[in-house]
Amino acid sequence: MNVNPPIVGAIELGGTKVLAAIGTGPGDGILARERFATGDDPARTLGAVIEWLRAQASRTGRMQAIGIASFGPLDLDPASPTHGFITTTPKHGWARTDVLAPFRRAFPALPIALDTDVNGAAIGEGRWGAAQGLDDFVYVTVGTGIGGGAIVRGKPVHGLVHPEMGHIPMPRAEGDAFPGACRIHGRCWEGLCAGPAIAARAGCPAEELDADDPAWDAVTASMGHALATITLMLSPRRIIIGGSVRKAGRLGEDRFFERCRVSLERSLAGYVYSPVLSGDGLRSFVVPPRLGDDAGVCGAMAMALASAG
Amino acid sequence: MNVNPPIVGAIELGGTKVLAAIGTGPGDGILARERFATGDDPARTLGAVIEWLRAQASRTGRMQAIGIASFGPLDLDPASPTHGFITTTPKHGWARTDVLAPFRRAFPALPIALDTDVNGAAIGEGRWGAAQGLDDFVYVTVGTGIGGGAIVRGKPVHGLVHPEMGHIPMPRAEGDAFPGACRIHGRCWEGLCAGPAIAARAGCPAEELDADDPAWDAVTASMGHALATITLMLSPRRIIIGGSVRKAGRLGEDRFFERCRVSLERSLAGYVYSPVLSGDGLRSFVVPPRLGDDAGVCGAMAMALASAG
Repeated sequence: MNVNPPIVGAIELGGTKVLAAIGTGPGDGILARERFATGDDPARTLGAVIEWLRAQASRTGRMQAIGIASFGPLDLDPASPTHGFITTTPKHGWARTDVLAPFRRAFPALPIALDTDVNGAAIGEGRWGAAQGLDDFVYVTVGTGIGGGAIVRGKPVHGLVHPEMGHIPMPRAEGDAFPGACRIHGRCWEGLCAGPAIAARAGCPAEELDADDPAWDAVTASMGHALATITLMLSPRRIIIGGSVRKAGRLGEDRFFERCRVSLERSLAGYVYSPVLSGDGLRSFVVPPRLGDDAGVCGAMAMALASAG
Repeated sequence: MNVNPPIVGAIELGGTKVLAAIGTGPGDGILARERFATGDDPARTLGAVIEWLRAQASRTGRMQAIGIASFGPLDLDPASPTHGFITTTPKHGWARTDVLAPFRRAFPALPIALDTDVNGAAIGEGRWGAAQGLDDFVYVTVGTGIGGGAIVRGKPVHGLVHPEMGHIPMPRAEGDAFPGACRIHGRCWEGLCAGPAIAARAGCPAEELDADDPAWDAVTASMGHALATITLMLSPRRIIIGGSVRKAGRLGEDRFFERCRVSLERSLAGYVYSPVLSGDGLRSFVVPPRLGDDAGVCGAMAMALASAG
């Protein structure tokens, strides 16, 4: 349609790595990309990202906005004195870091959008991926940690801070005595289903588990409880599960999703009626991301495109 | 300001009683009100409500819209063939009842707004009550059942169906062996904290319990888990708890709220930082409704006013 789509910068700021890209959209729309270690020195890391982005902007000659999808918790309240800060993260060196100001200083003429990594991924999946055409859906990542971004009427939920779905209290799955691995909450969702929790439970990383290891039963049962909680709290039209755990090693992604859907249906027990909440309907309700591991950086790109107007 | 504010009709359709009113707002704004038994014959009940409303409309000469805040689950999807129906309720006689069509037929010229009872109460508290000035908050009712309405960016969350917060899976409060009283889910929030669940646990109704009955410990601990789940899922700026259980008999409303706040803080364990999520800040975060037992019917009125433009 548009022969000159806007070119934007995109940064996915993760706990382990930072992905930066410049382009117009996913796939071939990514004109250049770079990867940085997050490290424990924010000034140095953000400085390197900005330097790379500045070189790309000057190379392409027309970077029009920047999107930053960051790990958190983040202060997203424009009225707050610490707007744009990562607040209470246990990530070494990054608590109380202003992640917005360095980009504002480096690119004073450009609109810069900041949101959580999972809100970014949700926005990207809504624009180009598994939630196209939907105004109400949730993107969750289940990996080193667990987080979720909720889109309500086309926009991410912020409210007081932003959702932190990974830390919801959870029921004990039947027969499960695992005490949980969250340093703060023990048996919250992240403490039961994130990668490190699975490793702590099983004694080896998730990707090395046998397909019939009972750990998968406990994990997918707990996933069902969490998906039911999301369904009952937010009434989304779809839930996208991204992150590394969904690949589920020898169990495989298809079986992991199938088991999560069965657990969700069991947990809801027919209380909320919708064709997508039972049987085969669930295959369109609980789905993997379509942008795969690029959901975050593409989301940052979608955020930038939205702010470029 | 406006010497002739719009007069609207309001119906709160509850599982036990139906409240109908006509007026311009809460308090003195209610020009007339009537109460009907819900019963098990929807045609008869809705017919009586319509007859009363028609008489009021003709008496005042200028009823401009109608709001209906109903128990559910409701089909609120305008594109659905069963839009306006109560769908799967266990309430005798009311499953698959079209609650919207009879009003449309009786008042073909008027805008008619339909939403859940809790979304209605939330809208009312937002317009006139404990959430004035807030765009993101949650209203929950804890009474015969438990339900919640979430307001995000000024409007109720609907999505696929609408939230059914009362049925979220719940962790076991420490030392609590009560199996739960929800006919469908056992130990969901409603199965642990609704009036009938407290009575089943304690062997007598909540209002007869001693202030130091251990049942209150278990109930307020579970309330804390549920409030934490709401906080982590929706990031509201305030949670309003309505319904009869909050009055808490001999324990009293103030102490009930105080214990719920302490349990919420314990359940969050400091993970999400905000001044309103700790200590005295919580007194403005978890609050009773300001419209009291009129929250529902005033909400229906606010819905009608919004649809009257």
